[in-house]
Amino acid sequence: MDAEIISVGTEIVLGQIVNTNAAYLAKKLTQLDLPATYQTTVDDQPQRLERVINHALTRAQLVFVCGGLGPTADDITMPTVARTLGVDLQTDNQHWNWIQQTFKQRQIKMEPDNIRQAQYLKGGTPLKNPVGLALGCWDEINGKIVVVLPGPPAEFQAMVEESLIPKLKEHFQTGKQITSRTLNFLGRPESQLMSEIQEATQNETGISITSYVQPTAIQVRLTVRDLPKKEATTKINRVQKSILAFEKPYFFGVGDDLTLANVVVELLKEKNWKLTAAESLTGGMFQSTICSVPGASNIFDGGFVTYAASAKEELLGIPNGLIDRYGVVSSETAAAMAEGCRQKLNTKIGIGFTGVAGPDALENHPAGTVWVGLAIEGQPTKTVQLHLASYIGRQAIRTLSVQYGLQMIYRELKK
Amino acid sequence: MDAEIISVGTEIVLGQIVNTNAAYLAKKLTQLDLPATYQTTVDDQPQRLERVINHALTRAQLVFVCGGLGPTADDITMPTVARTLGVDLQTDNQHWNWIQQTFKQRQIKMEPDNIRQAQYLKGGTPLKNPVGLALGCWDEINGKIVVVLPGPPAEFQAMVEESLIPKLKEHFQTGKQITSRTLNFLGRPESQLMSEIQEATQNETGISITSYVQPTAIQVRLTVRDLPKKEATTKINRVQKSILAFEKPYFFGVGDDLTLANVVVELLKEKNWKLTAAESLTGGMFQSTICSVPGASNIFDGGFVTYAASAKEELLGIPNGLIDRYGVVSSETAAAMAEGCRQKLNTKIGIGFTGVAGPDALENHPAGTVWVGLAIEGQPTKTVQLHLASYIGRQAIRTLSVQYGLQMIYRELKK
Repeated sequence: MDAEIISVGTEIVLGQIVNTNAAYLAKKLTQLDLPATYQTTVDDQPQRLERVINHALTRAQLVFVCGGLGPTADDITMPTVARTLGVDLQTDNQHWNWIQQTFKQRQIKMEPDNIRQAQYLKGGTPLKNPVGLALGCWDEINGKIVVVLPGPPAEFQAMVEESLIPKLKEHFQTGKQITSRTLNFLGRPESQLMSEIQEATQNETGISITSYVQPTAIQVRLTVRDLPKKEATTKINRVQKSILAFEKPYFFGVGDDLTLANVVVELLKEKNWKLTAAESLTGGMFQSTICSVPGASNIFDGGFVTYAASAKEELLGIPNGLIDRYGVVSSETAAAMAEGCRQKLNTKIGIGFTGVAGPDALENHPAGTVWVGLAIEGQPTKTVQLHLASYIGRQAIRTLSVQYGLQMIYRELKK
Repeated sequence: MDAEIISVGTEIVLGQIVNTNAAYLAKKLTQLDLPATYQTTVDDQPQRLERVINHALTRAQLVFVCGGLGPTADDITMPTVARTLGVDLQTDNQHWNWIQQTFKQRQIKMEPDNIRQAQYLKGGTPLKNPVGLALGCWDEINGKIVVVLPGPPAEFQAMVEESLIPKLKEHFQTGKQITSRTLNFLGRPESQLMSEIQEATQNETGISITSYVQPTAIQVRLTVRDLPKKEATTKINRVQKSILAFEKPYFFGVGDDLTLANVVVELLKEKNWKLTAAESLTGGMFQSTICSVPGASNIFDGGFVTYAASAKEELLGIPNGLIDRYGVVSSETAAAMAEGCRQKLNTKIGIGFTGVAGPDALENHPAGTVWVGLAIEGQPTKTVQLHLASYIGRQAIRTLSVQYGLQMIYRELKK
């Protein structure tokens, strides 16, 4: 079962935007055990798109054509797919009426071309668009399946989730059952983790164990095919148990979209602990990451960005002279920042980040030198120094510092 | 002149990572007037990669193969390209010695396969890797050009900048001259901006004017071909002048990678003004964006993340009762946050963000309701309410709020 994702858009081939839709759909297809072997991107040019679709049909049974469903002249996808497959377009009158009403309500002028957003491949099935105007389409023709999806990521993701995935499950998994679970690990090299997992599970059969390296975790997916849900789950539970017998210290949770920030927020909720931070080189990125988790308000009231030494002293009450004596990039300053913010907001945990994001060195420390301080009420304050490669650049140095801080907190919460 | 970018990587086709390299290279090629018409992604599978390369050679004169130059078994790119083109591999002994020394210095165990990172296509030209081990390669064969590049973004970008682009300029632009300039605009719909620009420049010939919509700006690129640098620049200056005669209020600077945060930081430096912030729903993202600009320390000492009402009152000195009276999501609270942080750090400018990131409503305001307050010393405080669509999601609501705040500050700085 080969699948191909075709992305249509001049703005992609010109490099104006990064193609996140292909990655999003590819991940969902992988989870459905329908991996897309090929991805192709082409500009808004009918002849080229037609050639790309025809080529895809020579090597894939399942072809997704993504983007170019808008109402303007350069949105050529639906008519081009129709011509390529030799079918006509038909209008979904109910949807067309809804579009017209929507424009009336919003008091927006209607363009005649807007009717194209209510058109799909004759003989195919329209796919609903939960957050936008344009219909998608699912068509089965000459033993192949062609799916047309919109380009704007919010519309694309909503249609994939609510219209496409149920259709794919229904079509490909009738009678067939796929059960899978993703385990998340950190603080272990992938090669080492996987060789230990292979050893721990060598007597298991009928289960596939694959690993994916994410920026902030190693994901291990357990997949069982062609077994009833109940038996498959029993098998997955058993395999998870034998894996965690060795790897528990590195395991931080189950789920495809689990992030360490989510886990830390959940653990803090359980313990009913609150967290604050004082950020220098990360400049608010740590707190922003915590606030990216819905419900963060249960465990986070606020905190400080203390970029200049003066702000560290004024806002955190760091004793005058301490920074002069030890330097901004020092264990002592990181510890004082962690303790200072914790006391100011009277939280259980305070974390401090100080270091050199670059490009220039600071106090003779090269870019990538970072100190993280962690203060927990009733415990001695810890500090850790990171030596990140300066060439990864300012943003990566800041991002990795934030991720390391989350790991330090996670380990304390699991103690 | 058709170009094709082939990205090699199982982690891309499985959707584990987003393919940023293709966008990066595509943008650089567009700037060199060598747009890549096609992008293809395939997994680490030699037969499939060979077919993809052969197909690319049927429709492109310039083929880039990106990724898979590591030392492990699944890094199959260089030998596969060699087999496909029917050439041998040769070892760059000088580079191979350097690799061996590097491993010795770092005291890392050497794998026999590491020699592959010093190999390139026989008869081709090795491309230096400024930040990593693997060589790239440029080869001209049967009138086509095939370029092999590494996968890790830091290595990829460094090799493109320092090794590939000079080679492309040398090869394609001998005798030929391309001069271009990118103007950045905001606060104007692309269609309107471009129709006005066409009107303003209708008498100009021999200059191409194209627009690209970025998340935070509309970029307009002026390109002149086949004229000596001096005349081309004169023409571009003249065209820019006639464009800005109409569009100056929406213009914020020249440059491909210019961001509004960069411009705001530069303008603050010029005025010698300092900035601080109090962030609720954005949770530190505004300050983190400011700190993403090298040299931000000249204009930013620090600021506050005040997520809970209590933190707004304690850290910013907002009078008790004000938030109760008007609500967290209110013009009054946004103004008090902006004024509070400004006074606490005694800066020229203070900005406050409060609102509903979602998914849940707050105080009966739907997700996407945001108030931004802007306090400037000696001026009345301004507040603006944003009504963002809730379906764009928590992260986009926070990001757009930050961008809108930057626009408010920019407009004040330009007054």
